[in-house]
This record gives sequence, C-alpha cells and structure tokens, in this order.
Amino acid sequence: MEDVRLIEVKEEIMADNNQVAAGVRKRLRDEKTLLLNLMSSPGSGKTSLILRTVEGLKGGVRLGVIEADIDSTVDAQKVAARGITAIQLRTGGFCHLDATMVTQGIDALAANDFDLIIIENVGNLVCPAEFDTGAHKNVMILSVPEGDDKPLKYPLMFTICDVLLVNKIDYLSLSDFDLAALRKRVLTLNPHIKIIEVSCKTGEGVEDWIAWLQKEVEAFRLGQGSK
Amino acid sequence: MEDVRLIEVKEEIMADNNQVAAGVRKRLRDEKTLLLNLMSSPGSGKTSLILRTVEGLKGGVRLGVIEADIDSTVDAQKVAARGITAIQLRTGGFCHLDATMVTQGIDALAANDFDLIIIENVGNLVCPAEFDTGAHKNVMILSVPEGDDKPLKYPLMFTICDVLLVNKIDYLSLSDFDLAALRKRVLTLNPHIKIIEVSCKTGEGVEDWIAWLQKEVEAFRLGQGSK
Repeated sequence: MEDVRLIEVKEEIMADNNQVAAGVRKRLRDEKTLLLNLMSSPGSGKTSLILRTVEGLKGGVRLGVIEADIDSTVDAQKVAARGITAIQLRTGGFCHLDATMVTQGIDALAANDFDLIIIENVGNLVCPAEFDTGAHKNVMILSVPEGDDKPLKYPLMFTICDVLLVNKIDYLSLSDFDLAALRKRVLTLNPHIKIIEVSCKTGEGVEDWIAWLQKEVEAFRLGQGSK
Repeated sequence: MEDVRLIEVKEEIMADNNQVAAGVRKRLRDEKTLLLNLMSSPGSGKTSLILRTVEGLKGGVRLGVIEADIDSTVDAQKVAARGITAIQLRTGGFCHLDATMVTQGIDALAANDFDLIIIENVGNLVCPAEFDTGAHKNVMILSVPEGDDKPLKYPLMFTICDVLLVNKIDYLSLSDFDLAALRKRVLTLNPHIKIIEVSCKTGEGVEDWIAWLQKEVEAFRLGQGSK
C-alpha cells in the first residue's frame, strides 16, 4: 500500500490563474501526461469512479491521483489502498482547486512518471467550474439521485466539461429521473459534451468510460493530445 | 398561483457580513418572524422539503420563501405553484448567500407579513457554511445517496447547523449508508444538533420535522425565540 502524502494548499490570490493553468497544461503535454479534472457534487461518486478506473485501465497506464478535500484524507487513503500513488491536497476551507494548488500536487507526484493524473476536485458544482486547474480534460459526474434539473441550475459546470458521467443508474428504478430530458438540457448548453451512463456500484457502463479514457491517454502518449 | 419575483443580487464585499447578519436576526425577532436557512448539496431535496413543509404546517403559519439560485427560477416557480410567496434571488455565479443578499429578499417579501421565512441557499456544502445569512436557525439536508462519510469531508456545515435532516431514506435498501456511523460522526462534531430521518418522496419522518419547526415558529410568535 502506498503512503498518502498530505499537502496543505493555499490560494495565491495575486497570481494569474489562467496563466498558471496554461503552464501546467503545456508542461504535462510535453511530458506526455494527460491531466484530467474530475468534478461533481459531494457524494456523486468521484472516488468510486477513480477506483473503477484503477480496475479498468489496461496497457500499463501509469496513474497518479491528486485528491482535494477540505478536511480529510479518506479519499486518498482509499485510492492508495489499491496501490496507486495519491497526493492529498487539503484546501483548508477553500471550495475549489486552482492551478497553483494543482501545481503543488503535480510537483509532489513527480509527474513524469505518469501517463495519466486524475485530480479529484472539491465536491461542489459551483466554484470548481470557475477556476481552470490546468487540466487537459474536464469531466463531471451527475448522479441520478441529484435530479435531472441540475443543468438548469449549475449551467457553467455542464458547459465547461468534455465528458458527463451520469452515475448511479442503478437508482433509476426508484427515481423519476428523466434521462432524455437531461440529455436535451445538457446538449443545449454544450453540444460537444460526451455523455456516458454508468453505475460505479454495479460496473454497468464503466467500460464505455474506460474506452474513452484509454483513447485519450494513448493520444497523449503519442503526443497527439487534443488540448 | 403567486408570481415569482426575481432579484439579481450582488455581494457587498466591503460590508461587515456578521454585523449585517446580526441586524437581520434582530429585525426579524422583533417582528416575531423565524428566519430559517436551509442548506445542502445540489439535489439533496431542499425544494422537496419546502413543498412537504407547505403541506405539513398547521395553525395558519404564514410562510414566505427566499430561493437562491445561480441561474434559474425553477425552484421558486415550484413553491409559488403551491400558493406560497416566493422570491428568487439570482446570485449570478456566487456560490453562497450572505446577509446583504438575504436582506434584499426580506425587503422584497415585506417580512412583517410572515411567521416563518425559509431561505433555500445555493446547493453547496462548502461556502454557505462560511457566511452568516442572519437566520435564527440553520438546517441542513444530507441525502442517503451522498454517503455517510460527508461529516468527515465537510465538517463546518455539520458544525454550524441546528438540525440535520437525513433525506431519501427510501434509498436505504439500495445503499450501504450506515446511519449509526453517520450519527456518531455528526454528534462528535456537534453534540447539540437534532437529527431527523425523512423521505420527502414517501413522507416518512416528515411529521417529526414539522413538529420541531412548528414549536420553533410558536416560540418566535410568543417572542421566546431561542436565538
């Protein structure tokens, strides 16, 4: 089992976040490492998705994880228990990660050892959408129990993401969640987003997510990453 | 059906939020109106709880609702459809309400017509916990699908609340949510919090919430509000 390293991060108010983010993106593209920023409400299944991703990745993909949390290390411990190197960023009350905080995580990971680094952002549909972390791809999870009206209420998050994972589809039978209505609302905001339905509990649909991810990782390995 | 009034709110960066909040609290206590701040993650059931509360309140309790949303009026419309006066505060990207924003809502409601005003805060477990809205009572919802580990990850929210409603208990059969573990984690942070298990879908447990609320409203009517 890997140890969890804990970093207390501070926001650099004066730094130009967009500039730092662009630097992070370039640095990791040069190192052929895909940086992926995973966002959702609290409890939508970010950590569960990462654990399913660890299981599903093939071809010797070297994965590192940067976990952000306000005040715990429970997620990083779960990831490290699977033998994955995990850095825990403790935001000390901050509601989002910025590119400077992510840089601290990447430096601690020593990024050139990895093909893929997944950032698990703070559980929040609002603030993380407003701060570029430097990731090449933004991925969000919406879980079925949260309801199909969330694109109406948190439009920016749906607008900035490359992939939407609709998680906990095993709850659909107990819910009035309308997948067609959701798709329509999301695609109105963001016609280019890829929508994948999954259940991290049963594993249903996870292969579609892994297929998308594997393709993106491969593109970065070959220096053909799309962003 | 009542009309929904929409107010675009702005944060007063320079104002002393705590001072404004204390003023709101005093003003409404003097008017014998209980102000309640309802918080949760996106999709935990804040609006559903308000609709159940509208049904359950007895004794001619005059209820007004202040809805906060980043970019929609869907919640206020649902409340207004029940004949309840609802103000929609559109925060324009802000991730929380502060006392100045709430004051704008109260002014629009004309607070002296109400025994109870419920604020539905922005769906977010982080930032709303950090800003005093001027409410007399803070109430949060945690829904079963979010998981029992949330007190470890968002401790401030659990610490500042008077009541925790554990919603969507109809999902318990599909979930590994551990109610006993949750209670222990929450009570460690906040020994005085009242925990009520409910399902806004089936109505289970809602009577316990209504009983607590009715008692608090009555105390404020008699000028004996506890805060």
